[in-house]
Amino acid sequence: MRCYFNAMNQTIYFHNSVYLTSAYSVVGTEEQKSKFAQYFDEKMDSQEWGEASFEKTELKMHKTAVRGAIREAGLDESDIDVIVGGDLLNQIISAGYSAREFQSSFLGVYSACSTYAESMIVGSLLVSGGHVQRVACATSSHFSSAERQYRFPLELGTPRTPLSQWTVTGAGSLILSNLPSGEACPRVTMATLGRIVDFGIKDANNMGAAMAPAAADTIVRHFRDTGRTPADYDLIVSGDLGKYGSSVFKHLVKGEGYILGTNYFDCGAEIFGDDEKKFQGGSGAGCGATVFNGYVYKKLRRGELKRVLFMPTGALMSKQISLQGESIPAIAHAVCVEV
Amino acid sequence: MRCYFNAMNQTIYFHNSVYLTSAYSVVGTEEQKSKFAQYFDEKMDSQEWGEASFEKTELKMHKTAVRGAIREAGLDESDIDVIVGGDLLNQIISAGYSAREFQSSFLGVYSACSTYAESMIVGSLLVSGGHVQRVACATSSHFSSAERQYRFPLELGTPRTPLSQWTVTGAGSLILSNLPSGEACPRVTMATLGRIVDFGIKDANNMGAAMAPAAADTIVRHFRDTGRTPADYDLIVSGDLGKYGSSVFKHLVKGEGYILGTNYFDCGAEIFGDDEKKFQGGSGAGCGATVFNGYVYKKLRRGELKRVLFMPTGALMSKQISLQGESIPAIAHAVCVEV
Repeated sequence: MRCYFNAMNQTIYFHNSVYLTSAYSVVGTEEQKSKFAQYFDEKMDSQEWGEASFEKTELKMHKTAVRGAIREAGLDESDIDVIVGGDLLNQIISAGYSAREFQSSFLGVYSACSTYAESMIVGSLLVSGGHVQRVACATSSHFSSAERQYRFPLELGTPRTPLSQWTVTGAGSLILSNLPSGEACPRVTMATLGRIVDFGIKDANNMGAAMAPAAADTIVRHFRDTGRTPADYDLIVSGDLGKYGSSVFKHLVKGEGYILGTNYFDCGAEIFGDDEKKFQGGSGAGCGATVFNGYVYKKLRRGELKRVLFMPTGALMSKQISLQGESIPAIAHAVCVEV
Repeated sequence: MRCYFNAMNQTIYFHNSVYLTSAYSVVGTEEQKSKFAQYFDEKMDSQEWGEASFEKTELKMHKTAVRGAIREAGLDESDIDVIVGGDLLNQIISAGYSAREFQSSFLGVYSACSTYAESMIVGSLLVSGGHVQRVACATSSHFSSAERQYRFPLELGTPRTPLSQWTVTGAGSLILSNLPSGEACPRVTMATLGRIVDFGIKDANNMGAAMAPAAADTIVRHFRDTGRTPADYDLIVSGDLGKYGSSVFKHLVKGEGYILGTNYFDCGAEIFGDDEKKFQGGSGAGCGATVFNGYVYKKLRRGELKRVLFMPTGALMSKQISLQGESIPAIAHAVCVEV
């Protein structure tokens, strides 16, 4: 019911360098048709990927992403001090069961589809504070595990509604370090922490509308806290607002005096192109994570982008609380990455 | 399947002071019979506490604890920069829906019944790093919402097994600040981050056995990292290993050369005394949180305790992954609080 904009300064600055030394993405079969396909690192051969359940597939994706990021960074598993991760499944089992295979410490985080940014924030606190040297951040989502947990078993063949989105089958992991790797190593320089915004949307098939006000709240506070404007960024990228949600988001932000132009896109709105069966586009924690790790990170590494604001958005309901008539609270964490 | 003990240093130190300026606990009807009863701050009049569902009761408990901690610290809600919280319900809805009522930023964390320690660690990173001034940490659990989510609907009257524990109906919140309040204000000085340990236990009614190796792994690493021994603490307190789990824990720790004596107790083993219907005792994120906030914090404030190691333990399974035959990974985060 509330959107604030005005409030205390909630942008935090990482004065000690936090380098983003590698990033790795794993995507499913539908995502390989995406215009971002060439940027993804590992492509699954099926939705099951050799596993006996969709939950176990997602777990495999999750740990494959972490291992890929460690390998890309030229590190061994024992070099990782802490894994910070979370996902959409109940009790964040993808992240928890994945971390079981590593000797690193584990901090589980959850802010739905904004989890990846939260993991980057907590990881940056650990590195920037000089507490540890290297952190692996990770998240994932799987269309089939999400559908049966949040909506209906796929076997029912329940029709999708026009405002619905399609959960991305994807996992992403990146390594934060106190030391750079290679030339032009991107850094996490600041973050604007999200807060819960709830406009009273009760339709769990219209998450874009539920999340847009939270995204607007965070980005407007980011601009006001930092004195920056959209023009200060080469790219502003939201996570999974979808086509409708991102248009609502741009409208709300415009109302506060900031115009988001061609240097803005939403991963969910773009990842599946104009595939009509995907309606408003992609969603899920893996949506922003794979597009950031794939497209955005590689562009940063090549020097084609210098300053990016990455802001995935999350809808924080559970199936049970929605069935009890509650509306959907949402959140968006924004992370600034600069070369 | 693994317990490590030997490994990299995973204890982090908070060089800038992180003061624990207030703590507040809310407990249910069964917990009011506890020997700790006099230390709890707010007592519910029924398991429902005027709400239409157990999930909504837990949400009310959660936000009541946060408001209580803010009030006890002599602060206004607008003084809290960030709320760091989580709970046992799917998608941590108690923490998320509670945070909806505050203007603070929100970071959702999850490590099952070890969540409270994780929230203190993330909160301490924020305060110690100079990023924010005040953080509210919070967690909760409710017997009835947990039973129907993790096990069976209460209406079924399913018999309990001898190794089972009883989820504590309780919520706890505390305020971390860069400035002390009152005399002898406790500080969070260090933390040993937990990692996932899984000994292959598959019985979701024997969580003590699943969690004991994780607790042993963390505390042994804590002693080795810091050079401290059990005798360096006035009190070492684990969260909810229960009677059986805490005996396994002590045995494992003894095997590594550390004797836990009368300065150690487990909140779960103690909270319900010898009530036979509670079998191995209390469990749940609210178990360690309420006993720490009630008994331990007040003893610290009175100068009766000077140095405490608080180490709640968490079992990270979901109902779904257990039904798929997976074992139970566990974790324990340890936080050192000193006056």
